[in-house]
Amino acid sequence: MPNQALGGAGLRGQSAGSTALCTVGKTGTGLTYRGYDITDLANNAQFEEVAHLLLRGHLPNQKELDDYKTLLVSLRGLPKALKEALELIPADAHPMDVMRTGCSMLGNLEQETDFSMQQAATERMLALFPAIICYWYRFSHDGVRIDTEDQSQDCIGGYFLKLLTDKEPSALHKQVMHCSLILYAEHEFNASTFAARVCASTLSDLHSCITAAIGTLRGPLHGGANEAAMEMIQDWQTPDEAESNIMQMLANKDKIMGFGHAIYRESDPRNALIKRWSKELSDAVGDTSLYVVSERVESVMKREKGLFCNADFFHASAYHFMDIPTKLFTPIFVMSRLTGWAAHVYEQRANNRIIRPSADYEGPDHQDWAPIEQR
Amino acid sequence: MPNQALGGAGLRGQSAGSTALCTVGKTGTGLTYRGYDITDLANNAQFEEVAHLLLRGHLPNQKELDDYKTLLVSLRGLPKALKEALELIPADAHPMDVMRTGCSMLGNLEQETDFSMQQAATERMLALFPAIICYWYRFSHDGVRIDTEDQSQDCIGGYFLKLLTDKEPSALHKQVMHCSLILYAEHEFNASTFAARVCASTLSDLHSCITAAIGTLRGPLHGGANEAAMEMIQDWQTPDEAESNIMQMLANKDKIMGFGHAIYRESDPRNALIKRWSKELSDAVGDTSLYVVSERVESVMKREKGLFCNADFFHASAYHFMDIPTKLFTPIFVMSRLTGWAAHVYEQRANNRIIRPSADYEGPDHQDWAPIEQR
Repeated sequence: MPNQALGGAGLRGQSAGSTALCTVGKTGTGLTYRGYDITDLANNAQFEEVAHLLLRGHLPNQKELDDYKTLLVSLRGLPKALKEALELIPADAHPMDVMRTGCSMLGNLEQETDFSMQQAATERMLALFPAIICYWYRFSHDGVRIDTEDQSQDCIGGYFLKLLTDKEPSALHKQVMHCSLILYAEHEFNASTFAARVCASTLSDLHSCITAAIGTLRGPLHGGANEAAMEMIQDWQTPDEAESNIMQMLANKDKIMGFGHAIYRESDPRNALIKRWSKELSDAVGDTSLYVVSERVESVMKREKGLFCNADFFHASAYHFMDIPTKLFTPIFVMSRLTGWAAHVYEQRANNRIIRPSADYEGPDHQDWAPIEQR
Repeated sequence: MPNQALGGAGLRGQSAGSTALCTVGKTGTGLTYRGYDITDLANNAQFEEVAHLLLRGHLPNQKELDDYKTLLVSLRGLPKALKEALELIPADAHPMDVMRTGCSMLGNLEQETDFSMQQAATERMLALFPAIICYWYRFSHDGVRIDTEDQSQDCIGGYFLKLLTDKEPSALHKQVMHCSLILYAEHEFNASTFAARVCASTLSDLHSCITAAIGTLRGPLHGGANEAAMEMIQDWQTPDEAESNIMQMLANKDKIMGFGHAIYRESDPRNALIKRWSKELSDAVGDTSLYVVSERVESVMKREKGLFCNADFFHASAYHFMDIPTKLFTPIFVMSRLTGWAAHVYEQRANNRIIRPSADYEGPDHQDWAPIEQR
């Protein structure tokens, strides 16, 4: 019974629907958004161009892009009740729990009561997600109530860095954020996107779908990998120290985060694109250890296990060079993947059947009822 | 390509894993929890016995049940920050958004940082879900801050009714709540449970899984059906009026909620079990219209379309006779199904592979990048 074997193994290789958004591991360097190669997008586009491509169906011309960015800037005001809710969340909360709760709370305050509101609801989340995480982070860690209606940054990545640091981000940092947000924007039926589609298939509202996706991305087997990679490499001072530690971890059969992939077999096309920026940032900050440590880990993993870096591995050092706290790495992933999640929800709604698979029963046969005094 | 056809149709009939919790439509009257027939459970057990069965693996003896109920009663105190968050949610919010946000907020305040905490985290939610919805409802609608640490009720259904009405619930009402909560507790790989398992498969925390499930249950194709049934029948005064309206709706090809099922083909075994209580409640309150209207709708749907009532249809009148506001019907479903969701999360964790299906690509072929000024 092939369905059982395949089904029991996480539906790997089983089709769960169709999409016009993305191919993974099929053509070119292996990742396309609506037919565009990820390398073209990551090297040439702004993140907002890619958001427009995914959510509105085409790459914008200059006027469309300007209008889109102006709209997103205008939507940065956090509702008062959402600010107050974020202030109730303690500093030791998991930042992904904060994102999940912030998104869910927003759904109470600004309900998507009709699917005709889906674009507007998505745009509001695109504008607000950096504000949600930074408002909570700065309040709980620094005791500061930031003004999220910043107008100085016209792009989402720059806006996030400005809210986080209260400083004007450099041109280099903004460029890296564009690339990073583009790389994480969409990836076909990954687990968090699939969770969003399952939720959408009951015709639930967009905030429910995105809340489900955030909670799913939170898992260490999914979005948590760049944080885990950072925690692993941060204490290694030299490439030789890194190599001996990795060899020991491999001997212990420890899981090394940031390597290999469920779909890609040869390489992850996103790795070269973010690695280049990690190198530039390393040079810019005068780093003499983290980048070379990362490179050594990459070569040891290739030599010993034949495994390649996925998108997460060099993201760790890149974000670290921009002084982003490690625990905020996965929330950045949320700001980006929101575009893919929402675009998949639109697709599911446009051609829906409720997603309701079967299960193989492996429990007990018929059990006779016994009154409690006879147990 | 059979996978495409099946996959594109909501994975219907495709196995997505295994379970020892439940069979739907296979044996006996068609629904079993760990081998026990739903009719035996609904006619004889308390909801807490079934929760124990699903979550701890066996029906409790008297001491185990007493201890379990005492434990759940002791866990009814809402954290201060959760109360404050609920007070921020307006009266016109969707009650399922309140449940979703309350669950998510709880995850910030009481993190499940290790899977060894999963039973304790579930018990806390079992104890608190009635408190979350009633605290918000009574505050936003009546301006009252209720004390959720009620000790007068030893069962979850009675506790919910007490918080909602501030009155001692009758023995009949408590008995109906046991039956209702048992009927809704578990149903194999339905969409909300499957969403919880997709989330769990990334090794995310329990609050993320349950939050995802709540958002999925919210959809009108899933948990919203009993509310929709109530809204449909509430204005019909006589069986003849109901019949002519249903005939008109069928002629218009309107969707009639509360009938048919994705899995059951002949009947839903839960219908007879709740219908009996709807009749008793109708007699108890001296109702002369709603129950007979419901029966007429049932017979017309059978005669005209060959469709049977599912679990939701007579739940509508039963809840109505107990003076439960229609918009709180689906949150009751949450209080119950929490047991099935959590038990499925435990199963997924015990034998996990990330749930990551494939998709059939139907988008554009390779697109050449064009600089923005050339678009």
